[in-house]
Amino acid sequence: MPELRKDPVIGRWVIISTERGRRPSDFADFEEKKKGGFCPFCYNNENSTPPEIFAIRPDKSPRDKPGWTLRVVPNKYPALRVEGQLNRQGEGIFDKMNGVGAHEVIIETPEHFKDLADLEISNIRDVFWTFRERIADLKKDVRLKYAMIFKNHGVSAGASLEHTHSQLIATPIIPKTVVEEIEGAKTYYNYKDRCIFCDIIRQEINENVRVVYDEEYFIAIAPYAPRFPFETWLLPKEHQSHYEKISDEMLNHLAIIVKEVFGRINIALNTPPFNFVIHTYPMQDNPIDHYHWHLEFMPKLTRVAGFEWGTGFHINPTSPEDAAQYLKQVTS
Amino acid sequence: MPELRKDPVIGRWVIISTERGRRPSDFADFEEKKKGGFCPFCYNNENSTPPEIFAIRPDKSPRDKPGWTLRVVPNKYPALRVEGQLNRQGEGIFDKMNGVGAHEVIIETPEHFKDLADLEISNIRDVFWTFRERIADLKKDVRLKYAMIFKNHGVSAGASLEHTHSQLIATPIIPKTVVEEIEGAKTYYNYKDRCIFCDIIRQEINENVRVVYDEEYFIAIAPYAPRFPFETWLLPKEHQSHYEKISDEMLNHLAIIVKEVFGRINIALNTPPFNFVIHTYPMQDNPIDHYHWHLEFMPKLTRVAGFEWGTGFHINPTSPEDAAQYLKQVTS
Repeated sequence: MPELRKDPVIGRWVIISTERGRRPSDFADFEEKKKGGFCPFCYNNENSTPPEIFAIRPDKSPRDKPGWTLRVVPNKYPALRVEGQLNRQGEGIFDKMNGVGAHEVIIETPEHFKDLADLEISNIRDVFWTFRERIADLKKDVRLKYAMIFKNHGVSAGASLEHTHSQLIATPIIPKTVVEEIEGAKTYYNYKDRCIFCDIIRQEINENVRVVYDEEYFIAIAPYAPRFPFETWLLPKEHQSHYEKISDEMLNHLAIIVKEVFGRINIALNTPPFNFVIHTYPMQDNPIDHYHWHLEFMPKLTRVAGFEWGTGFHINPTSPEDAAQYLKQVTS
Repeated sequence: MPELRKDPVIGRWVIISTERGRRPSDFADFEEKKKGGFCPFCYNNENSTPPEIFAIRPDKSPRDKPGWTLRVVPNKYPALRVEGQLNRQGEGIFDKMNGVGAHEVIIETPEHFKDLADLEISNIRDVFWTFRERIADLKKDVRLKYAMIFKNHGVSAGASLEHTHSQLIATPIIPKTVVEEIEGAKTYYNYKDRCIFCDIIRQEINENVRVVYDEEYFIAIAPYAPRFPFETWLLPKEHQSHYEKISDEMLNHLAIIVKEVFGRINIALNTPPFNFVIHTYPMQDNPIDHYHWHLEFMPKLTRVAGFEWGTGFHINPTSPEDAAQYLKQVTS
């Protein structure tokens, strides 16, 4: 019998339909091998991107020249632009505003043929450290209400360049999905006086059927109502609402669990295309008790179709208990 | 400057980022040609599907045998099953229920190499007539609260079989997206005492910049805040909350506008993969003044990535005004 499960935070129902029977080997073998060729994110092509906003350059090389180990540049085709005023206005019954915001690309390594999980832990740490620093910088622009950090890996996950990179889009309004998640968490807090994510972490550790990896500062779980097969969330065990408040010590541990978990998923699912998104509290607000930042990792193994678009429901052929079990057993 | 536009019903913001410059010819040429081979939806393979629920058989041929022009069967790999009780229960802080529901497939024609828009108007009418009849039948099961009719066309839009078909999934709860849409429309109605969809239709006819096709009973528009390039909505001009209340006369006109609009999209975008979804009011409820059924057609030209998953925002490189202009000029 298929099972309907409700995400406790956002209130989204998911159909766990395991009769369709999907084990890792049942998913298509993606073989999205990197092809190489001209790449604007490689050494000596620094002029193919807009001038860099920030870079880690251990050899103190000049900007927009080789020598960097990580580089942040504005997106050449930005979804939003920093210049201008919001200029909110109506058009009859419709509402619009200018697309003011920031759209940055974090080039995670100069090495074209490496993926994030292939990097040394210290380089992975640099990537997540850079996320923290960029949010802290963008926060100074009070027009920007939210900073969404995400990564598209592989063509079918929406990546337009194969050289490993993540992105940051800062928006002048708090996105709908974020508002819903925060409201869901707040409703729970108002009723229980406890953070729902802290409660989830406690229950998951206790039941130990959806835990993928558990270390000192972070836990990786298959969420109770996953939209996608092998969806995996990383959460800090201590309560923390804002990603940009992550400590240096925590960054070391985040790099460790990212390498471990992303590496296991690559082995189990043959380096699948994926997206990850960091869910964090709006950057202009103070730390709060009812929200808990986390990273949602979504391998792209199934296709979103009419039913999902119409309902907001998702049909998932792999239970999170099965997914966690597989990922637990994988050894790198 | 990119523009943020708000869908007036569901409150979803969309980034219209035309600087990325997408005209129909800029989108990938999909070439998802049908391959043929064994097909459970073709004549003489009726035993490869579960026994038929309903069929249009002009020659009075026996069930589950050739002779039909349209056939409805249960999905062989259903997301939900008709048998059993809902059995709502908790698991610690989590909530679940059994996946009770119906999942039917409407095989639109026996002709393997034809698409919906290639059929005669009378056959298209039969498809939409069947949707009405199936909802009327499923409504008798009061456990079922909502009937979602949708179509996935092409592999990248999630179709698993190439023979043209649509699907109906009836769910025991009203899906989240539907609830949000209804609530958005109700908020507007409470404020204005007018249906928001009726107001949209009036404004669109008046401005005449996003109208794709306008006929006696139906209008096709590019919505003000489309998630996807060339997203197109078909709405009845007269207020009507429930799809299943469509009259025989209206069905004739719906078939005409479907053939016209789907045909134009096929010409403009080289027969793209697509999804469509019929948005209608929950079937167990009486007709109401604040909701208006419609069909949302979404060509699959862009990929949903991390930003969309994290925010609920969509980035659309084609403005609805441009899309409507292109589709208006296309002649079949």
